[in-house]
Amino acid sequence: MAVVTLITDFGTRDAYVGVMKGAILSVDPRAVIVDITHGVPPQDLACSARELADAFTYFPPETVHVTVVDPGVGSGRRILAVAAAGQLFLAPDNGILPASLAGVGVDAAVSVENRSLFRQPVSPTFHGRDIFAPVAGHLSLGLALGSLGPAVAWHDLVRLTISGPRPTPGGGLTGTIIAVDRFGNLITDICRSDLERLAGRKSWQRLTVRLGTEEIHGIAGIYADGVSQKPIALLGSRGRLEVAVRDGSAVVRFSARRGDPVYISTR
Amino acid sequence: MAVVTLITDFGTRDAYVGVMKGAILSVDPRAVIVDITHGVPPQDLACSARELADAFTYFPPETVHVTVVDPGVGSGRRILAVAAAGQLFLAPDNGILPASLAGVGVDAAVSVENRSLFRQPVSPTFHGRDIFAPVAGHLSLGLALGSLGPAVAWHDLVRLTISGPRPTPGGGLTGTIIAVDRFGNLITDICRSDLERLAGRKSWQRLTVRLGTEEIHGIAGIYADGVSQKPIALLGSRGRLEVAVRDGSAVVRFSARRGDPVYISTR
Amino acid sequence: MAVVTLITDFGTRDAYVGVMKGAILSVDPRAVIVDITHGVPPQDLACSARELADAFTYFPPETVHVTVVDPGVGSGRRILAVAAAGQLFLAPDNGILPASLAGVGVDAAVSVENRSLFRQPVSPTFHGRDIFAPVAGHLSLGLALGSLGPAVAWHDLVRLTISGPRPTPGGGLTGTIIAVDRFGNLITDICRSDLERLAGRKSWQRLTVRLGTEEIHGIAGIYADGVSQKPIALLGSRGRLEVAVRDGSAVVRFSARRGDPVYISTR
Repeated sequence: MAVVTLITDFGTRDAYVGVMKGAILSVDPRAVIVDITHGVPPQDLACSARELADAFTYFPPETVHVTVVDPGVGSGRRILAVAAAGQLFLAPDNGILPASLAGVGVDAAVSVENRSLFRQPVSPTFHGRDIFAPVAGHLSLGLALGSLGPAVAWHDLVRLTISGPRPTPGGGLTGTIIAVDRFGNLITDICRSDLERLAGRKSWQRLTVRLGTEEIHGIAGIYADGVSQKPIALLGSRGRLEVAVRDGSAVVRFSARRGDPVYISTR
Repeated sequence: MAVVTLITDFGTRDAYVGVMKGAILSVDPRAVIVDITHGVPPQDLACSARELADAFTYFPPETVHVTVVDPGVGSGRRILAVAAAGQLFLAPDNGILPASLAGVGVDAAVSVENRSLFRQPVSPTFHGRDIFAPVAGHLSLGLALGSLGPAVAWHDLVRLTISGPRPTPGGGLTGTIIAVDRFGNLITDICRSDLERLAGRKSWQRLTVRLGTEEIHGIAGIYADGVSQKPIALLGSRGRLEVAVRDGSAVVRFSARRGDPVYISTR
Repeated sequence: MAVVTLITDFGTRDAYVGVMKGAILSVDPRAVIVDITHGVPPQDLACSARELADAFTYFPPETVHVTVVDPGVGSGRRILAVAAAGQLFLAPDNGILPASLAGVGVDAAVSVENRSLFRQPVSPTFHGRDIFAPVAGHLSLGLALGSLGPAVAWHDLVRLTISGPRPTPGGGLTGTIIAVDRFGNLITDICRSDLERLAGRKSWQRLTVRLGTEEIHGIAGIYADGVSQKPIALLGSRGRLEVAVRDGSAVVRFSARRGDPVYISTR
């Protein structure tokens, strides 16, 4: 029994996700299907790449991760299947996989072209159902990657430009809010390694985060470290710097939104 | 291992759906349960019938499809179990199944009355949990339809009036927006067969769709065919005419809503 | 194959729930995971306790119920594993379990401290993924409760004050709206036993519910008992008094919200 995960921008109100699951189970009735998220903003490739990058290591070996954020559906864009880190990845050739798997050793990559594995007829507007789903079912049954289509060179794939934090003249970093979660926490693209580089041998208590007109001194360990209704900065479970408000909502407190800048520097 | 699907108007924020799954698994611990959608507008029978009609063919043989949109719960309305197209269907006798299965050969239909299969006590307000769920579990275990209750005649079931597209004086069709998806695409009740009848031997490029004050010429093949921010019409993955805006949202662009008319004619 | 249920305040748009499922399946690939609800308002312990109390009996024996509403994550608060009613329960020691299991015989309770069962490293901000999920996986595989950590005394657990209905001077009860469901039904903390005590030997038709400036006479049996657009009171499927509007929405009709009082008395 293999796990098949789904990341899409389909939302959960419409039937698109349920129909994809039917198409997967039509091929592999024993597949265990897990929704990672369907809340990717429509066509937001960078968001889906970050969700996949932050989630895949928590799944068992041989999991098949399917990411369908696919503005080019039905056009000539390729579909990729990749083996990496003991797992399998299916996504359009639009930059999601090179961005998600940056720094991970890739064992094999193929272009999915074996039409005998597709559901027929293939709708030009919903490859999620007619190509990704049945191919994921075949992979979860154990079909070899080489049966899907010809090998492709990793350097030949479409690349997505995801700008990470940039150095700030004074010596700090300018990051970006990449997500706001249900608790109103503001999640940035600043990672543990950025904090380590920036602090060097100094304590993280010497770091200052600036958002809007407010400064937050030091990096807290846990949400409960905060004073009620006061903002704190901490390294969240995605391995990214977050701004939170204890017993409150940082997104409300700061009137912040995705894309806003966040500054961090040593005091 | 049989698949059991769910279509309801319960939403996913409350625990109603989860509790139904517990009741299914209490009968058949090996059932594979798939949510098709819980986003049917409250008590919207026609919407649930269309969701079921557009989804069921993508599931494996012997799937048990459970639709609970049930304004008459607890009243005298019957509950139906139907075998059709190699699958099984459970729904209240309120018109959902005749509408969903129009044009599909029905092999058997029974009224669900065998109380020994129900969870006890049966709540008068939640037959989803106390009747539909355990009966679905018994069906997924392989119980014969005849064990559920007496056969009913198909022509004797409650009918739902779902008005499809109507001919327009000038020779075209007037359809209706039946759904707006997460991408803002406007999905109509105009189907492939309507387009084929209307176009006859002419190319679909000769068809014109009118929505509000705008005209869209020709039927595109894929979303990526559109010019950025411009509306296109295309046959979507549900087999229905859709109006979309590339890199944008048709629902915003047209200030449209469910129930609005859409016109289509030959140029 | 054991069932593992999840109740959280994570919502379903973010990937937190999906990642927890990956961590469960990494330990027990055969676990059947069911979402009860992720719609608990952030940090609302009482709401999560009521959801669990109202749902758990609908699941099979040996189900593992995981509730993660955890404002104290990463602080010194304990994590509890409890055996009761033939099922297993995992939650922070913040009052959820004593409130959910009030009146249920508890067979055993332990403090979860066996770090060899946790995912390493343990994030200080997401014990759901790094402790609750893998421990739930071990429980669903059949690991004995005693392997998780030392026994704790039931009277020694953190208690949550959930105020139920209070007597009203005139002889009735003042309850509270604890939830509003997708249909706009107003669900109160007044239970069947409260109605029975209040009515005594009188018919429930002699009870009057007052909400805002309106009075509702008698307790209806089913939603369809109502007159279209008129409010009714009934005992809902959660075993709690509800106010509903047939073919309408009580939350709109009464401009009510969670926390508002509802009065009930004999006429």
